[in-house]
Amino acid sequence: VTSPSAYSPLALLGVGYIGGSVALGARRAGLTSRVVGYDADPAAAALGRERGILDEVAATPEGAVAGAALVVLAAPVASLAPLAARIAGALDAAALVVDVGSVKAPVVEAVEGALGGRFVGCHPMAGTERSGPGAADGELFRGRTLFVCPGPRAAEDAVARAVALWQALGARVERIEAGPHDAAMAAVSHLPHVAAFALAAALADRWPALSGAAATATTSLRDTTRIAGSSPVMWRDIFLANRAQILPLVRALEGRVGELRAAIEAGDGEALEAILAAGRASRERFMKGT
Amino acid sequence: VTSPSAYSPLALLGVGYIGGSVALGARRAGLTSRVVGYDADPAAAALGRERGILDEVAATPEGAVAGAALVVLAAPVASLAPLAARIAGALDAAALVVDVGSVKAPVVEAVEGALGGRFVGCHPMAGTERSGPGAADGELFRGRTLFVCPGPRAAEDAVARAVALWQALGARVERIEAGPHDAAMAAVSHLPHVAAFALAAALADRWPALSGAAATATTSLRDTTRIAGSSPVMWRDIFLANRAQILPLVRALEGRVGELRAAIEAGDGEALEAILAAGRASRERFMKGT
Repeated sequence: VTSPSAYSPLALLGVGYIGGSVALGARRAGLTSRVVGYDADPAAAALGRERGILDEVAATPEGAVAGAALVVLAAPVASLAPLAARIAGALDAAALVVDVGSVKAPVVEAVEGALGGRFVGCHPMAGTERSGPGAADGELFRGRTLFVCPGPRAAEDAVARAVALWQALGARVERIEAGPHDAAMAAVSHLPHVAAFALAAALADRWPALSGAAATATTSLRDTTRIAGSSPVMWRDIFLANRAQILPLVRALEGRVGELRAAIEAGDGEALEAILAAGRASRERFMKGT
Repeated sequence: VTSPSAYSPLALLGVGYIGGSVALGARRAGLTSRVVGYDADPAAAALGRERGILDEVAATPEGAVAGAALVVLAAPVASLAPLAARIAGALDAAALVVDVGSVKAPVVEAVEGALGGRFVGCHPMAGTERSGPGAADGELFRGRTLFVCPGPRAAEDAVARAVALWQALGARVERIEAGPHDAAMAAVSHLPHVAAFALAAALADRWPALSGAAATATTSLRDTTRIAGSSPVMWRDIFLANRAQILPLVRALEGRVGELRAAIEAGDGEALEAILAAGRASRERFMKGT
């Protein structure tokens, strides 16, 4: 399943950091000799061509996928359902379609509904705070976990081709159902992003009071807000797409911040220490899993 | 001011990560040939002696400081005022006293009140999530920022000796008033700790639903909660000591998390994106300062 013809030409819909990295990695691994791309933002597609990610820029998604053996859906999560509906009629019968979205249940349901068993939902755990094709890196997936979340209709030969694709790019593939995947991501990825964005936003009006030296001398703020450098549009879509899983966790976070605020207000050292100890114990439990 | 006799013997009150690192660094730099230590926890003092941090364990703080040229107050912030009152009568007239606490205004006021101009408030920006004398490292301060916050009564020769001490340990010394120091730390260090502890605590009941693989595949949670591995007692004291500066920021964080929760609840993509964009812009502003 890893012969070049299985993945070439490659159609890339959404020329960003992750999609661009898939295309560069597939080319480097010898899986494809031709990449045709489309992006709703012509500047992103043009940059993709400049950077050697794309051989050709297509004017429409339908034009990009015509004749493609592999279609990589790498546009924002919220756009995947309409995108799938739009390309359905232009796809080759033998084409494999994968996505790279961070939320799987709604994506798999909608895209599989439009494209059937040739679609295999995928999520590479390789995101960073970077975005855009300028940051694309063909080695991005090496050693990283990649979740494959086939829907109920996915053809097993399509799943095998998707697994082989990611393995050729160096990823460690794990198969998991879309629902449990989304619940897990809400905790280990989506809620941390809520916290990081909220923390950075809370300080938005506070910078003028800080000296440059004081602001830069700490690693605490740098590490806790690193992922708040991520794309607001991408994370807006992820939070909305995974709303059911993320909401109870955001409420829990809001509750914990409120408990800490109340304990500091009241000067209640005992309550304060109990919450901090619960946080430390929770983190230790997480770190033991690593 | 960096001749050995200026800092030897060294009395260490509070045998933990930071204090132990000061003692090891001072010994390595040839500033002291003898370290006497006291800790309210006899096990910590014993470990300090085992690790070569201490030459001798004193039974009381007064016993430790008798005859010392340099006294390093490295106990939790909340204990520094009573500790200073306790050692005042046992100090040599020529002794230099420094602390290493993360909050300066209340510490400087109380300790200077008890000890006068020979006390110089100091804050090395070298904390990590580690704690205890087992983690002490004589090279901890190399290249790190150290704030010197002398109170109104501090003797300039004491300030000069304190500056020379930290420079000998490799730190980059910055002099700043205690009030602005505490306001800056509330934003760049204390609020990130609130966010990290709250995030980790919010997930405390949520781990059972996660597979080990999913939990460990993300760097988001690891980085955002790293500092939630810090000592709950130490941070309880810091939050309470810097309460006036930290409270408005915690309220702002609580407000931002609430805004994100409300926008996700309402499915309001526009509001959601605006908050995320504010967070990203705030972080960019911070990073530009580096």
